[in-house]
Amino acid sequence: MDSMTLILFGATGDLAKRKIFPALFNLFVEQKLPRRLSVIGLGRKPYADSEFQAHVELAVRTFSRRSPEDRLILDEFLRSFRYAALNVTNKEGYRELLALVQAREQELGISEQNRMFYLSVAPEFFGVIAENIKQSGLGSGRGWKRLIIEKPFGHDLESARALNDQLSRAFDEDEIYRIDHYLGKPMVQNLDTLVSANPFLKALWNNRFIANVQITASETVGVEERAAYYDGAGAIRDMFQNHMLQLLMMTAMPTASQDTTGNIRRRKSQLLKLLRPISKENAANHVIRGQYEAGTIQDQAVAAYREEPGVDPASTTDTFVAARLWIDDPAWEGVPFYIRTGKRMKEKSTRIVVEFKNPLREASGNAGRESVPNLLIVQINPDEKMSLQLNGKNPLSGRMESVHMDFAMPTHQMPEAYELLLSDAMRGDATFFAKWEEVELAWLWIQPVLDAFEENLLPLHRYPAGSYGPDAASVLLEEQGFHWWLDDASREKELLEVDIG
Amino acid sequence: MDSMTLILFGATGDLAKRKIFPALFNLFVEQKLPRRLSVIGLGRKPYADSEFQAHVELAVRTFSRRSPEDRLILDEFLRSFRYAALNVTNKEGYRELLALVQAREQELGISEQNRMFYLSVAPEFFGVIAENIKQSGLGSGRGWKRLIIEKPFGHDLESARALNDQLSRAFDEDEIYRIDHYLGKPMVQNLDTLVSANPFLKALWNNRFIANVQITASETVGVEERAAYYDGAGAIRDMFQNHMLQLLMMTAMPTASQDTTGNIRRRKSQLLKLLRPISKENAANHVIRGQYEAGTIQDQAVAAYREEPGVDPASTTDTFVAARLWIDDPAWEGVPFYIRTGKRMKEKSTRIVVEFKNPLREASGNAGRESVPNLLIVQINPDEKMSLQLNGKNPLSGRMESVHMDFAMPTHQMPEAYELLLSDAMRGDATFFAKWEEVELAWLWIQPVLDAFEENLLPLHRYPAGSYGPDAASVLLEEQGFHWWLDDASREKELLEVDIG
Repeated sequence: MDSMTLILFGATGDLAKRKIFPALFNLFVEQKLPRRLSVIGLGRKPYADSEFQAHVELAVRTFSRRSPEDRLILDEFLRSFRYAALNVTNKEGYRELLALVQAREQELGISEQNRMFYLSVAPEFFGVIAENIKQSGLGSGRGWKRLIIEKPFGHDLESARALNDQLSRAFDEDEIYRIDHYLGKPMVQNLDTLVSANPFLKALWNNRFIANVQITASETVGVEERAAYYDGAGAIRDMFQNHMLQLLMMTAMPTASQDTTGNIRRRKSQLLKLLRPISKENAANHVIRGQYEAGTIQDQAVAAYREEPGVDPASTTDTFVAARLWIDDPAWEGVPFYIRTGKRMKEKSTRIVVEFKNPLREASGNAGRESVPNLLIVQINPDEKMSLQLNGKNPLSGRMESVHMDFAMPTHQMPEAYELLLSDAMRGDATFFAKWEEVELAWLWIQPVLDAFEENLLPLHRYPAGSYGPDAASVLLEEQGFHWWLDDASREKELLEVDIG
Repeated sequence: MDSMTLILFGATGDLAKRKIFPALFNLFVEQKLPRRLSVIGLGRKPYADSEFQAHVELAVRTFSRRSPEDRLILDEFLRSFRYAALNVTNKEGYRELLALVQAREQELGISEQNRMFYLSVAPEFFGVIAENIKQSGLGSGRGWKRLIIEKPFGHDLESARALNDQLSRAFDEDEIYRIDHYLGKPMVQNLDTLVSANPFLKALWNNRFIANVQITASETVGVEERAAYYDGAGAIRDMFQNHMLQLLMMTAMPTASQDTTGNIRRRKSQLLKLLRPISKENAANHVIRGQYEAGTIQDQAVAAYREEPGVDPASTTDTFVAARLWIDDPAWEGVPFYIRTGKRMKEKSTRIVVEFKNPLREASGNAGRESVPNLLIVQINPDEKMSLQLNGKNPLSGRMESVHMDFAMPTHQMPEAYELLLSDAMRGDATFFAKWEEVELAWLWIQPVLDAFEENLLPLHRYPAGSYGPDAASVLLEEQGFHWWLDDASREKELLEVDIG
């Protein structure tokens, strides 16, 4: 791996502490970092290098999946870290930063001047930072430069384009690594391989066999400390435009014969282009928005969204969005994709449920009457696992019952999303990062829905905290004769049990 | 369930002790026996009822999957049992037996005179017993009569037909329940349901997706005390003509839309009729026979077959048979079915491995090169379980690896084959019994191979005890570019581990 400097903006922030430092540490232990690596942490307040290193150490001790038992290894890891205070709007500061970066490059023998800029800061600073990186000469080293940013990439189509224009002045598209951390999940990364590299699944991955697809990302938490951002964004921007559409792309994109980087990203864009537009006027027929009322989650009473600190008491922000999507591709003709995401729901779960068609059901025989549809369940959160629901015969009763074949990722060794993504970015592999085309197409598709929300063209359904969202979200499926699978806690339990016998 | 009398010939024998009494006891505990049941045990030597009941109790205590903890329940169970000595060739004895049966019917209030005759005796007595049942009037009660017999059903096509003719004089075909205990295994009984009632599997169950099917029944034991029978029969009669062809039928028969009794048996016969004949002259190209030499099994030295007590030192009996079969049906065109069975092999295992085609393999991409075929593995012995081998991406290495989705029958509550079969017979459900048509078709198909063996038209391969049989059995597959899956102990291990990560 190339030697490099990682310049981390927002190094004293929450993401750095919870995700980035632990990820770097785990990569270090697994010897997946460059042998020569300089990390420069940047923040507003001044700290001594030793203070910053102590901060990194505490972050690793608190949040790493691997506890740092060996002092020598930890010290070796921390030796890479330096800190500088930087006011991101102050051009002079960047020149000082360049001097520090160069001094460290020299000190560590990093002759290539490869520089990775990780902007773990509020998006309104993306533009100015990029510009200053360019103007200061930080981005003009002899080696490569890369930019890592994380959503939100804009607030709507227009602002997203404006932001991208700004970034484009300093970085080429193939130098920009846009993190959608859902794409860093091992099970999500596995989706394309599972479908494309298994004739068994590939053969079934179309409208001849699939009845519908249900993608859920439900949270039990409420808006927490993010009201300032969230109340202006809603679930549609916070989750739907990015994570949910990414999961849809990973599930429904055309399968591959060859698994190359360009290929996955090209196939994802291809899918988005086939996504049937929902017009502003038509949004009410295909999209459900909701907002949580007071309720009970795991026996705890919780407040309504409008009563949360920092939320406008008259807010109409969506804390829940469900939608029915159609893909205008012969392979998916007639297959609805149902997507929903929300806060303060009954359970924390991210999953993709693929329901297969059941021609036997319509048949008159017993087999048909008793059997339930075959399901492929890909669970991404809380655990990463995959389950196949089949019909089997209970040898005791002779009756048909659901049986489940399961595959679970071994949790103890599983890398976290940020480890996989950081490692990919360091190796220059952009497969699991969002390219601009995807982001733009996603905004393009969602803009009429945003407008419909804005103009109140569709109702704001209230749902009690601790529920599965508004009933209207079930009606979306009932219109095609389907229902959300695994919603009931007892069904969930049934699923996880081997229940023959 | 109908009240009935179960008349058990060979009640002091090994099968009764190990299988039938424990099965009856477990059915009793699960309240799956008729409320009014009379069991009459028959043997050559005279025993008092109490002695016989003590014998049954010991059998239950020794061999039942459920230990009889409650004395009251055990006593209630044993109260059904009576014993009579009978010389099966002595007509007079049957009249005394009839008197006993009638007395017990009266005593227990069994007014229907339903009588089930279970012939757990050597097959040479089947004919005379059936005849005497008829002549004595035992088979002329007011209720139904049923006959349960177990293989061997003849020694070749001619003797099988002769035996059936004898039985037919006393019993109608639909009164005869021929046990093949492989058909009593829950996982085997599940095969048709799994394929027919799951669109997911049904869609794939043909030559478009399946490359080949491998059916193995390997034993580690040698001939043991059965040399007198076995040396004249060989693996081809002992295993192949019945169990192996039954597994083939259950795997490859046409799928159903409606799951009715007649349907399964009809579909099985249908399959046998489509089995491409192997002529005597052609047998050497499609069938491998083997006999074990001395060798080592689980670190124990074991003798060659010819050195086993009771075996002719010049015996050419097959202790191993492998064959490549073709089914002349459009659905299976070009799909070889490989079958093998043998004694003194490396491991005890009965399994069906379905190998799916892998079009990606021929593709030039990485996906193709690294991927292995999808396998569906149905294991029947030692444990009953099902496993699906897929290709997944190792999130750590980024490389493709096998992942396995597993479903295991919960062993602790699993009924044994004889429980399921006895219960079916008592309910008059013949689904999982071999009907005469199947037996005859199987003999018809296998007769030319028997002739080829007899006339030494194909070599007798020697294989060391503790191996997977003669190498020639692998060549059978190599001719189509395949190999036996899971043969290697390490592969077996690999299979059972979740090996991502």
